[in-house]
Amino acid sequence: MYPTLSKKKATCIRQLALKKYRLEQAAFVLEGKKSIQALLSARYAIKCIVGTSSFFVANQDIVASIRKETEVFETKKEVLSGLGSFVHNHEVLAVAAIPSATEPSISPVDITLALDGIQDPGNLGTIIRIADWYGIATILCSQTTVELYNPKVLQASMGSFAKVNLHYVDLPRYLEGLKLPILGATLDGQPVHDFAFPGHGVLVIGNESHGIQPAVKAILTEAIAIPRYGQANSLNAATATAILCDNWKRFCCPASGR
Amino acid sequence: MYPTLSKKKATCIRQLALKKYRLEQAAFVLEGKKSIQALLSARYAIKCIVGTSSFFVANQDIVASIRKETEVFETKKEVLSGLGSFVHNHEVLAVAAIPSATEPSISPVDITLALDGIQDPGNLGTIIRIADWYGIATILCSQTTVELYNPKVLQASMGSFAKVNLHYVDLPRYLEGLKLPILGATLDGQPVHDFAFPGHGVLVIGNESHGIQPAVKAILTEAIAIPRYGQANSLNAATATAILCDNWKRFCCPASGR
Repeated sequence: MYPTLSKKKATCIRQLALKKYRLEQAAFVLEGKKSIQALLSARYAIKCIVGTSSFFVANQDIVASIRKETEVFETKKEVLSGLGSFVHNHEVLAVAAIPSATEPSISPVDITLALDGIQDPGNLGTIIRIADWYGIATILCSQTTVELYNPKVLQASMGSFAKVNLHYVDLPRYLEGLKLPILGATLDGQPVHDFAFPGHGVLVIGNESHGIQPAVKAILTEAIAIPRYGQANSLNAATATAILCDNWKRFCCPASGR
Repeated sequence: MYPTLSKKKATCIRQLALKKYRLEQAAFVLEGKKSIQALLSARYAIKCIVGTSSFFVANQDIVASIRKETEVFETKKEVLSGLGSFVHNHEVLAVAAIPSATEPSISPVDITLALDGIQDPGNLGTIIRIADWYGIATILCSQTTVELYNPKVLQASMGSFAKVNLHYVDLPRYLEGLKLPILGATLDGQPVHDFAFPGHGVLVIGNESHGIQPAVKAILTEAIAIPRYGQANSLNAATATAILCDNWKRFCCPASGR
């Protein structure tokens, strides 16, 4: 039996739906059992966990892995679903501390993703999941890219947010200093099906409507494109990221994989 | 100058947000300029178009292509955004007739997609856009797949809904009668990077949580999988569709494309 949630604490949690309060409290909300399992097995400091009594009874493994410094509260289903952003969350949510920003670590032998102004939270979450699938450890984001701790980003990442490192940087300046091959996804670049990918480097994905900004375009070592067989004008940014990662990985690491 | 929208007509349009009324009226709503351009250049019968006066002034090309049988109404921005499903639509919407169902036409020389219980409207819309990019003319959907005329499906398809033919069928029965190679996307099938794809056939994509239903699994000629290099448990259904279409097309039609 855990203490019930105070009204004051409930208000603090509800506020975290807004970026302003996430920055102010340096904290974010995560909803649902799977996301919280991802959080528990990663490096995040969990401030509190709020669940229904039936959730705690049914998930003793989660209860056992809660650290001492985490406050735990019990509440009713109705209260819980009013706290988060997703109406279908009736079980559990957690508040975790936003880790302080660190310097990106760029692998000199692998692919790094760079997102230049991705705006849609679902796209960013899906791209994080794709990076996790393709073993890409680091994603560089321009300052104009949607915030990682937006509830829709975390939700769409399906737990992968805890396994991929995101860094918000001055993208053109940062990429210029890297001295690595910088490939950019465009509609009119080299077709990737017969492109000789370098063994390592950065893949830049641009904004959903405007593509890659001119300052980044100027420092691309190559513009690449997905061959089109039909009539659609473009592909969704996350879809394009997946196809390009698959093409790059199959070219450079044909033996690995499953 | 067009007549203003009556209250009765406005109510009818608002009702079309629900599947029940879409079936009853055999009509659906489409929002935004780009979607309506796609509609005008396709085979749909447009019942009415509702726009702001400034929209009609600024888009004389659209006005010129409106057929005589289409009613046109003028309304205010505030009224318009209350009629549809997307708050950011302040310009124009159309009501079109749902075409009566036809028999699927399956190309004996190309790829056909089959969706077995896709639930998320965004995923279905994105898959339609992917099909349009890869020149796939037909998508077969199980009866458990989300409805094409759901506003979020149409929105995510970015106009491609008007260029790809969707058919809702009894999927296991239909596929069994096809006498074509039936490939299914699974997590443990043949890795696609070195798979010898047939020159034509069907690609089955399963439900987001439960994958392909047993009755369809039983008639697959081959289960295929996307090689994984990292740790994510799975990929989003639309993402997986895109990667598999890209692998199939590059194998069978390496010369075509852009």
